[in-house]
Amino acid sequence: MIDLRSDTVTKPDEAMREASRDAEVGDDVYGEDPTVNALERRAAEAVGTEAALFVPTGTMGNQIAAHVHTEPGQEALVERESHVYKYELGGLARHAGLQVRPLDGGARGVPTPEQVESEYVEEDLHRPGTGLLCLENTHNAKGGVAIALEAIEAVAEAARERDVPVHLDGARVFNAAVALDVPVTEITRHVNSVMFCLSKGLGAPVGSMLAGGEAFVERARRARKLFGGGMRQVGIVAAPGLRALENVDDLETDHENARVLADGLAGVDGFDVQEPETNIVLVGVSASGLEPDAVLERLRERNVLATPFGPTTIRFCTHRNVSRDDIERAIPRVEAATSP
Amino acid sequence: MIDLRSDTVTKPDEAMREASRDAEVGDDVYGEDPTVNALERRAAEAVGTEAALFVPTGTMGNQIAAHVHTEPGQEALVERESHVYKYELGGLARHAGLQVRPLDGGARGVPTPEQVESEYVEEDLHRPGTGLLCLENTHNAKGGVAIALEAIEAVAEAARERDVPVHLDGARVFNAAVALDVPVTEITRHVNSVMFCLSKGLGAPVGSMLAGGEAFVERARRARKLFGGGMRQVGIVAAPGLRALENVDDLETDHENARVLADGLAGVDGFDVQEPETNIVLVGVSASGLEPDAVLERLRERNVLATPFGPTTIRFCTHRNVSRDDIERAIPRVEAATSP
Amino acid sequence: MIDLRSDTVTKPDEAMREASRDAEVGDDVYGEDPTVNALERRAAEAVGTEAALFVPTGTMGNQIAAHVHTEPGQEALVERESHVYKYELGGLARHAGLQVRPLDGGARGVPTPEQVESEYVEEDLHRPGTGLLCLENTHNAKGGVAIALEAIEAVAEAARERDVPVHLDGARVFNAAVALDVPVTEITRHVNSVMFCLSKGLGAPVGSMLAGGEAFVERARRARKLFGGGMRQVGIVAAPGLRALENVDDLETDHENARVLADGLAGVDGFDVQEPETNIVLVGVSASGLEPDAVLERLRERNVLATPFGPTTIRFCTHRNVSRDDIERAIPRVEAATSP
Amino acid sequence: MIDLRSDTVTKPDEAMREASRDAEVGDDVYGEDPTVNALERRAAEAVGTEAALFVPTGTMGNQIAAHVHTEPGQEALVERESHVYKYELGGLARHAGLQVRPLDGGARGVPTPEQVESEYVEEDLHRPGTGLLCLENTHNAKGGVAIALEAIEAVAEAARERDVPVHLDGARVFNAAVALDVPVTEITRHVNSVMFCLSKGLGAPVGSMLAGGEAFVERARRARKLFGGGMRQVGIVAAPGLRALENVDDLETDHENARVLADGLAGVDGFDVQEPETNIVLVGVSASGLEPDAVLERLRERNVLATPFGPTTIRFCTHRNVSRDDIERAIPRVEAATSP
Repeated sequence: MIDLRSDTVTKPDEAMREASRDAEVGDDVYGEDPTVNALERRAAEAVGTEAALFVPTGTMGNQIAAHVHTEPGQEALVERESHVYKYELGGLARHAGLQVRPLDGGARGVPTPEQVESEYVEEDLHRPGTGLLCLENTHNAKGGVAIALEAIEAVAEAARERDVPVHLDGARVFNAAVALDVPVTEITRHVNSVMFCLSKGLGAPVGSMLAGGEAFVERARRARKLFGGGMRQVGIVAAPGLRALENVDDLETDHENARVLADGLAGVDGFDVQEPETNIVLVGVSASGLEPDAVLERLRERNVLATPFGPTTIRFCTHRNVSRDDIERAIPRVEAATSP
Repeated sequence: MIDLRSDTVTKPDEAMREASRDAEVGDDVYGEDPTVNALERRAAEAVGTEAALFVPTGTMGNQIAAHVHTEPGQEALVERESHVYKYELGGLARHAGLQVRPLDGGARGVPTPEQVESEYVEEDLHRPGTGLLCLENTHNAKGGVAIALEAIEAVAEAARERDVPVHLDGARVFNAAVALDVPVTEITRHVNSVMFCLSKGLGAPVGSMLAGGEAFVERARRARKLFGGGMRQVGIVAAPGLRALENVDDLETDHENARVLADGLAGVDGFDVQEPETNIVLVGVSASGLEPDAVLERLRERNVLATPFGPTTIRFCTHRNVSRDDIERAIPRVEAATSP
Repeated sequence: MIDLRSDTVTKPDEAMREASRDAEVGDDVYGEDPTVNALERRAAEAVGTEAALFVPTGTMGNQIAAHVHTEPGQEALVERESHVYKYELGGLARHAGLQVRPLDGGARGVPTPEQVESEYVEEDLHRPGTGLLCLENTHNAKGGVAIALEAIEAVAEAARERDVPVHLDGARVFNAAVALDVPVTEITRHVNSVMFCLSKGLGAPVGSMLAGGEAFVERARRARKLFGGGMRQVGIVAAPGLRALENVDDLETDHENARVLADGLAGVDGFDVQEPETNIVLVGVSASGLEPDAVLERLRERNVLATPFGPTTIRFCTHRNVSRDDIERAIPRVEAATSP
Repeated sequence: MIDLRSDTVTKPDEAMREASRDAEVGDDVYGEDPTVNALERRAAEAVGTEAALFVPTGTMGNQIAAHVHTEPGQEALVERESHVYKYELGGLARHAGLQVRPLDGGARGVPTPEQVESEYVEEDLHRPGTGLLCLENTHNAKGGVAIALEAIEAVAEAARERDVPVHLDGARVFNAAVALDVPVTEITRHVNSVMFCLSKGLGAPVGSMLAGGEAFVERARRARKLFGGGMRQVGIVAAPGLRALENVDDLETDHENARVLADGLAGVDGFDVQEPETNIVLVGVSASGLEPDAVLERLRERNVLATPFGPTTIRFCTHRNVSRDDIERAIPRVEAATSP
């Protein structure tokens, strides 16, 4: 089975498992887990912030960030296809009492400064004020595109001028940095907080980091307790997370594999393949005459897994548990599966 | 002073004031105010529903409707320029825990069935389900346009097919009915609940009605208590409200006055006048070289009041406290005010 | 029918009705209703605060106060039989995200400084901090007792020392002032905000006032919009409210009538009558062998109305629409109704 | 250092670490982690429910249970010293919109059926209805007392008669079962849902289980996503959790150690030692003339750790990482530390 559904399916490698077994641990609610503490320091360094916090999931990281940056009754500017808006069960309203104002980020999923300017609302007697701008990089729903530094800088600057904090859903921000060939801090320096996942392409089994200034992270730590995310001997999870941070350079391999896969799939009849920038390959299947679910079912019969991605698209995602060989074996299977 | 800011500024006439003075009243929390009870019955008849509830404001009526129709964590489809989304302080998130999905209703502010189809979300593990569609008719931000019956029917049908209830913000729904020359029930029969204002063009000093099925109104009555809207001898306010319901036909005069005003203003240099359908006249002023606030200031100096309406537009609103004469006197004042 | 259910049933007198008919009005959302403005100034003077806000109901006034004084996730200290806790549909949690910590205020419904000290919670990683103390005077559920100045001062001081703001549910605070024979400002000067009702003993048909400092009232005005309480030509309701403020001295008559009633009922077999301090008379009926509802039903047959008040108690409430004669006619009816 | 602060400080043993390293894992958001699936089945069996759900913390388990059992605006009956009320940051209000009604569970922390009867509220126009009863067993704040089966049955029955679901915060429910010498299912069969911790006395590094009926757990799984608790290759945490479930019988050793500790401390001057029933020993220190923090500081200097527990009490907690020898060495240190 070649599993190209998501980079969340990556399993911890031997080194991670050993690290977990041997981790020095303590009670993190007391701040005494040395491995978590090391991971939080290391993560903050990696993204260039004062501090960082381990959270069980990216969803919790994003939601805590929104909760800490805002007050109930404000508005959040979100990209209309972003994860925080589409796939977090309406948490912005539930947890933080925020009304969303979705911006159409176009093909690359990044709002323009003009959109921020036009959708920004000044608080008055009738209107909630704008309290947050959320960005996503790489942008999953747009096919893992890596948003250019200039684009981030411009939109973040437009928010900052209006005293609106910016949170980056950087679940795959290291993929963006690798694709753009810049240090990740060139991306993160434009935002007030960033969440990134250890458990996607970096390969850790569990966990994400929420990074920002000291005061922000201190408030986030308390909010984590409110959300039920304050765990105990988390070192056993943090240890593979620390290893995962060493895997950043390997993401280039995933990106190459995605390009190889895209090239291969471009030849498939009825497939409309989007050129990948990172580890995600979107394929429009409407010309095949098949529904996405039907395509996926045929792939599954040939031991290839991908995911549905809207009414006419399927998504393939490369990751450290699929090799170049796997990719090369997958291509003919997909061809065979979809030929009449 | 000719006050064309809003039809909310209408003052109760003598008949209303007499009705208020003479109203038979009781404690409405006990259901014992006969005038309120009469108003609620009369309002339900007027819009063709089983029941209706007096509420202090249209905002409370809309918010209670959203609260009763949904459960926290669902999504509400709202038009992106609608009152319930823009001008109710983010109440959908605050009061009802709803995430909004704004639809662009185009020039007439009415979403299409295709938009409902494409933005409808089925509840699953990651996604809030769609729990409500809100419409607005007439649509204030679009210039008081009266949405055609076919358009309402089509979009409401698209919602109903997905078991999504439809609430109509009908603050000025009687203006729509008059403009379309149909009984208001031809509009309201397509929706599950409707709020309409007594205190706008109909001329009552205070109050709105929330109408729908028996079970809906029963739940709304309890929610009104939660919102702090359960008043006592409300008959003194309901009595002018009952009179206001007799003023529906007079709205045609407001509409005529709006057309006269629009024709007159069309000749003003630098004014881009939108053809009115009801009692609202939107005027783009960018060609005048003046900011809306500067135009309004000049009008005020000539004893004409209007309101700012976005970055390049001002709004005039006719109502029962401005006569044809007032309109005819206003036009040359506006011309004089804006000539260089 | 002698209606002793509640002072909320009072109907506006002729003077109030005339005042309503003749009221100068304007659009209060624009701040242009002169009668409301006068009422707000007058109410602020009456209770000695910088500012005041007209609200449709006491419930909305209390809920807005809690909302403005606190932030979500804090705790509110409330008396365990108080209106804000028992009869406002859990609004403290719903509207303001507050966890309550109920204090047993004993026979007089007033918590002690020691209770505030022991139940006060300092915010930490695991615990919400205390953000509000609510008092009620007179205390309805305890039988309309008027809390002594020293008791209010002591408990409010205990809160202030911990930077906890104090809100007074003074729905009947003028009854308290009359009973204590002090200016009402002697009561209100100990608290940060006070809500009082125009529509209870003072006799107005509708409305309550929320009073406090300028900044507090400014925020309350915005919150009122969020709650749907921002009405238009409210002068027609504010005018009788202004008249109602002249009725303060008449409350003494209600209190006398309550004493007369209590004396009369003390002779009724099976009645355990609590000595009234203001306009409320609680009567325990367990010794009569009848359920409260059965007693009330028998009274109703004799044209006397009272309310159930817990499992063994009924409540009589005097007000300006029942005269001494009414009281004297009511007593033998109650005797007759309950004799075997 | 002999760490008696809490059983949350237990570190995973070699077997657990090996289990973690060797765990078969998968993506639990897809339901594909075989180790988690095994743990969920095993946990459900253990407490005799249809299903169970892995959650990162006990707090999340309790909050999800409240969220699933109720609707916003209801009331929750909670014991006034219970964890869910005191130490979860007001989550019942924040996450679930619940108003609490705290019951004083007396020395053993268990409300009586009479309290449920008297504090139960039937939903009406003014009052939120009662939607949940939360119990805690063993009760931490009362000193780890094990609530008798009859007491649980009686209070749960009182709730059930009123259609009020019962949730058990069973963070240490296995300690209760061992102390009462009954199968844990004798306790859990009286409730609708139970949360228990793997990471306390059972020794797992991370995690708790939320167990109940199929439909309840299905809804809880979705709510877990909303809370940000849906992790990926959780098998590495679930594997030690599975081992932890084999440690139930070892809790008896912790209880013996607590008794030995209590006996030893009973001789300490100025200590008022509560007889332990499980693994918690509460010691009143007011007679020592020292504040709890001062006592703890002196203990720390002698390499013994305990926790403050209110204004005059400290808590010792035995667990699998302190041996009988440790206990016997701790006693004289405590004596030495507190002698003048």
